[in-house]
Amino acid sequence: MTATAPASLPATMRASVLTGVGEVVIEERPVPEPAAGEVLVRIAAVGLCGSDVHYYRHGRIGDYVVREPMILGHESAGVVVAVGPGVDAGRVGQRVSIEPQRCCRVCRYCKRGEYNLCPAIEFYATPPVDGAFAEYATIDADFAHPIPDGMSMAAAALLEPLSVAIATARKARIEPGSRVLVAGCGPIGLVCAQVARAYGAIEIVMTDLVAARRERAAATVATGVVDPTVDALPDAHFDAFIDATGALPAVRSGILATAPGGVVVLVGMGADDMSLPVSVITSREISVTGVFRYNNTWPTAIALVEQGLVDLDSLVTASVGLDGVVAAIESDADPATLKSVIEPGR
Amino acid sequence: MTATAPASLPATMRASVLTGVGEVVIEERPVPEPAAGEVLVRIAAVGLCGSDVHYYRHGRIGDYVVREPMILGHESAGVVVAVGPGVDAGRVGQRVSIEPQRCCRVCRYCKRGEYNLCPAIEFYATPPVDGAFAEYATIDADFAHPIPDGMSMAAAALLEPLSVAIATARKARIEPGSRVLVAGCGPIGLVCAQVARAYGAIEIVMTDLVAARRERAAATVATGVVDPTVDALPDAHFDAFIDATGALPAVRSGILATAPGGVVVLVGMGADDMSLPVSVITSREISVTGVFRYNNTWPTAIALVEQGLVDLDSLVTASVGLDGVVAAIESDADPATLKSVIEPGR
Amino acid sequence: MTATAPASLPATMRASVLTGVGEVVIEERPVPEPAAGEVLVRIAAVGLCGSDVHYYRHGRIGDYVVREPMILGHESAGVVVAVGPGVDAGRVGQRVSIEPQRCCRVCRYCKRGEYNLCPAIEFYATPPVDGAFAEYATIDADFAHPIPDGMSMAAAALLEPLSVAIATARKARIEPGSRVLVAGCGPIGLVCAQVARAYGAIEIVMTDLVAARRERAAATVATGVVDPTVDALPDAHFDAFIDATGALPAVRSGILATAPGGVVVLVGMGADDMSLPVSVITSREISVTGVFRYNNTWPTAIALVEQGLVDLDSLVTASVGLDGVVAAIESDADPATLKSVIEPGR
Amino acid sequence: MTATAPASLPATMRASVLTGVGEVVIEERPVPEPAAGEVLVRIAAVGLCGSDVHYYRHGRIGDYVVREPMILGHESAGVVVAVGPGVDAGRVGQRVSIEPQRCCRVCRYCKRGEYNLCPAIEFYATPPVDGAFAEYATIDADFAHPIPDGMSMAAAALLEPLSVAIATARKARIEPGSRVLVAGCGPIGLVCAQVARAYGAIEIVMTDLVAARRERAAATVATGVVDPTVDALPDAHFDAFIDATGALPAVRSGILATAPGGVVVLVGMGADDMSLPVSVITSREISVTGVFRYNNTWPTAIALVEQGLVDLDSLVTASVGLDGVVAAIESDADPATLKSVIEPGR
Repeated sequence: MTATAPASLPATMRASVLTGVGEVVIEERPVPEPAAGEVLVRIAAVGLCGSDVHYYRHGRIGDYVVREPMILGHESAGVVVAVGPGVDAGRVGQRVSIEPQRCCRVCRYCKRGEYNLCPAIEFYATPPVDGAFAEYATIDADFAHPIPDGMSMAAAALLEPLSVAIATARKARIEPGSRVLVAGCGPIGLVCAQVARAYGAIEIVMTDLVAARRERAAATVATGVVDPTVDALPDAHFDAFIDATGALPAVRSGILATAPGGVVVLVGMGADDMSLPVSVITSREISVTGVFRYNNTWPTAIALVEQGLVDLDSLVTASVGLDGVVAAIESDADPATLKSVIEPGR
Repeated sequence: MTATAPASLPATMRASVLTGVGEVVIEERPVPEPAAGEVLVRIAAVGLCGSDVHYYRHGRIGDYVVREPMILGHESAGVVVAVGPGVDAGRVGQRVSIEPQRCCRVCRYCKRGEYNLCPAIEFYATPPVDGAFAEYATIDADFAHPIPDGMSMAAAALLEPLSVAIATARKARIEPGSRVLVAGCGPIGLVCAQVARAYGAIEIVMTDLVAARRERAAATVATGVVDPTVDALPDAHFDAFIDATGALPAVRSGILATAPGGVVVLVGMGADDMSLPVSVITSREISVTGVFRYNNTWPTAIALVEQGLVDLDSLVTASVGLDGVVAAIESDADPATLKSVIEPGR
Repeated sequence: MTATAPASLPATMRASVLTGVGEVVIEERPVPEPAAGEVLVRIAAVGLCGSDVHYYRHGRIGDYVVREPMILGHESAGVVVAVGPGVDAGRVGQRVSIEPQRCCRVCRYCKRGEYNLCPAIEFYATPPVDGAFAEYATIDADFAHPIPDGMSMAAAALLEPLSVAIATARKARIEPGSRVLVAGCGPIGLVCAQVARAYGAIEIVMTDLVAARRERAAATVATGVVDPTVDALPDAHFDAFIDATGALPAVRSGILATAPGGVVVLVGMGADDMSLPVSVITSREISVTGVFRYNNTWPTAIALVEQGLVDLDSLVTASVGLDGVVAAIESDADPATLKSVIEPGR
Repeated sequence: MTATAPASLPATMRASVLTGVGEVVIEERPVPEPAAGEVLVRIAAVGLCGSDVHYYRHGRIGDYVVREPMILGHESAGVVVAVGPGVDAGRVGQRVSIEPQRCCRVCRYCKRGEYNLCPAIEFYATPPVDGAFAEYATIDADFAHPIPDGMSMAAAALLEPLSVAIATARKARIEPGSRVLVAGCGPIGLVCAQVARAYGAIEIVMTDLVAARRERAAATVATGVVDPTVDALPDAHFDAFIDATGALPAVRSGILATAPGGVVVLVGMGADDMSLPVSVITSREISVTGVFRYNNTWPTAIALVEQGLVDLDSLVTASVGLDGVVAAIESDADPATLKSVIEPGR
């Protein structure tokens, strides 16, 4: 049994490759061949994520070190152009959003549904696994999620950060009537806030150090915004606190603002160690946890976008081709930038 | 309607009162009168808790400051000798274990069953509320839990720390097959380990700095013990980690020993702030929380003791009268001491 | 301590009393006095419920038999005009929605937050407890829920059926992306569907035998409607099935349409016994349960209405005074009727 | 890549094949070859289950019809003798208990951990899939669970019915202090009762029509037994009711004996339709559900046996070779029979 593919597939493709700290080059690479159970996707859109920027600037994130040239990008969508052995050939031509992870399917985590915790997990653009800043990429067929006709390719790519937000909302146990605090008005904070709203949160207070970011949040999804350098948060008030900053002061003040029985979810990556107010955590029986990617989120993500409960297209502030990756990375710190999308076929 | 009581009740009683740091005196106090919905209990046994010792030595625990003379003791049991208005007079004579808290019953926490988080909660021997190192004490009728005939008064008193352990096991989501780490082989650690075993934990590893304490744990409930100054804990291994030390090194090493998806419950009181490995918490999606007393635990506690799944009597290393409170406090740091019981009627 | 009330309160009030099967008369009754912990509410609006109609027509619902004259009505709202001992006098003047039940607060159900299952529960307009088709009624202060300024009294009254729908959605485990089937397009079915939508359901299929009811559902909240006499439901498709009919064919076909792992919640009251497809229930691991009123729903209900996620005012098809109770009851079977509201002060 | 196997494996094996209603013959069959990801197991012990007996007598169970000759038996254990491509050859020689199902691993049920609900599930001895009344059988490597040295092969085979009981206890939400009713004192009822005890149930009442079965239950695991033809069950008393009979009177009386908020789990297979007391289900908010096999139970099952919390060996009342299958089936209705074990290598 061999892979099924249209005759027209090229042998090589263009890819944007991280070759060293601060070094990204366009290379010609072989088009990957879909293995058994996989599909080959012609990539249409890829969101630029903070982790891509971090690998570019530092060559590592914690223990994950880029030792070989690696293609960045993990928020991606496109069209199935070939299938590997065992996959329905009818999928060729399907528009899909890529859930960019591969799990072993046999460990205790996979078998109980928490496949993101699989010790053998492989993830796009996490060393040494290539990502999607390229014309083509492969993924397990069931991790290439078909999308509705009306959904843009950019939105389909951004189902990935939306999945992070859904995993967060589930852990935060947000339900109709919840009062939610979100620290950070960047793309992840905004998507988390949108999801909180979709889950019925009645109060969504957001904080950020940058006025322009707070204003955008207030204009779109926040029911209130706070400049933490000026105003204090209400004590013991929120049912859930989501940190999308990774900054110690935000985490600490957020915990103090969390009500007894509340949940704190750390989404932002920051220092390895943080001094946390454990006496408050204990005496209020607050649960502090984090999200490490997601599992079983795409169906929900597609539903939220289809229902109009979450708007991803409005997050896109720039679209560039593969040649524009470095420029996109450089503009990421600009408060006017929310989400840049790379279009490899451009 | 007035309180129902036998004619023989005295007007005053002996009580052991904390009058200043390091100062406990026996005073003659009026016997309290049961209010509407309350019972009056003749106290038979009261366990000495680490928090009693702490108030004696420091006059405060965190924000709770002893400003007026206060009766210590909150692990108590006895016999109902009078009832307040609205309480079935048939309860007089009943042997009961006291759940030493009073809640408002109307706030959102009380109404959803988390009455320990009630903002108006009052708790024995937490300033300014008197405890049970006295001949008599009052409590709401439904917080005076009838005990089986065969249960000793000392065991009935120790249903209180057992309740802490049950609240811990619930939050730790211990179930048959769980692998559990318990830091600290003092009374709370041992009771938590016993409860973990009763909930089906297959592996219960305990740590302590003191060899004698580790040996007692190994001889009774632990499936393995570790001297943390000598041996490392397995990395990412345990489904649940219970800290009963409040010590930073124990908390940190316990978190590192917790498996992905695991739960950390802080029972021991330590520093207000602790530097925690948040990158590990996040990347493993560990939940860190604490217990603040308990709710709805007494029926379970009584069942566990009645079934022989937990043995409380063997924890008692000394029994003294009210005159022995100071001696009991002084001996608390002795590794040979596990639990001293005060018998006010002695 | 005595009740606090404005001098202007009258001694008697008008009440609509069920005196026998098919017999409702206006009587002059003493204005009830708020007991300790209670408030007295001047009733502004009361929804007419199917159970009121049933008591009128049959004098009983199952084991609940009307043996003495009883005031009907349990979906009510109004203004606090007096408070009993122990209640903040500042509540006088507050606009409130009444949660029409009294629980014991000390049994194991109350203490774990499931107070609707309290064996001593008392409920408005359930024999022998009087309801709210009267100018005044008393309720425990914490069951008189303050409402926002913008909420109409009719909507505040209908927070009661909304609470049934919220209790249903919780049991049905509806979450973003859920596919939900609702049998019955009457008021309860429509409110359940609105709540399902607010909880993120992506598909809400509704059935009814009456075309006009299906059309109203399709025009407001359903994503699809089915005439069960004509079209079959998809097999094993829905994550949740809510029955708001009590009719055997609807219940059976709804269960067959429920997917493996799905939940069935019976809201409608029907025959005591029903022949259910237990082999389907078992082989699909479907959970079948029901709702008996609700607990801890008012905060959520108020939030849903305030957020505009649920629209209660549009359900009101008629408003009448106390004199109009019989006419309202008589018109209840008319498909054009959704919800009649009684305004006792009219 | 090819399968790894010792040279000594034979080409054919003996198998006990169901060839028609009431017709079982020994056939010589090819030894199956382990496919990619599979292991080949030399079967040491197989429990005879009621479903085997049912297929023998009726040729079908509900919609599952035996149309081709089929090997019965699904409670099995043995030794790995060969591995398929991609499986660690070091597993050869390992003693394993077989979880007798194959799932697709890519559907939404598999990916969220409920792989027993996978629509493509294949199960031993369920038409048209062969079972384990044979000298050899294949299974996915991760469904061949290594067992501890001290566990007998018979016990290892009976981890399968133990898994049914664990799935039941989880759905029944049994926890320390639970009061449990089990209808039926056959092997499944007894194992469910043992698991309930291991989960901390304080009261385990069992019913059966046959005195000898009740006596065995009372002598081993029940805290009380009831002859339903003589004594009534307490009304609304039990937190959980497990039906292991499939008999309508048992199911109905069990539901009436279930407390408000309780859970009913149907394990026994009976009529497709049953007339259930839905007004009781609804007014008590009882959840009625069933178990369809199990997921993620083997680690727990092994732990329970290893801890001595469940005793499987004592359930075995007969051990026979492949030639004894018919005799074992014929003796199944004898009250003296609990569990017959087939030893194909005998």
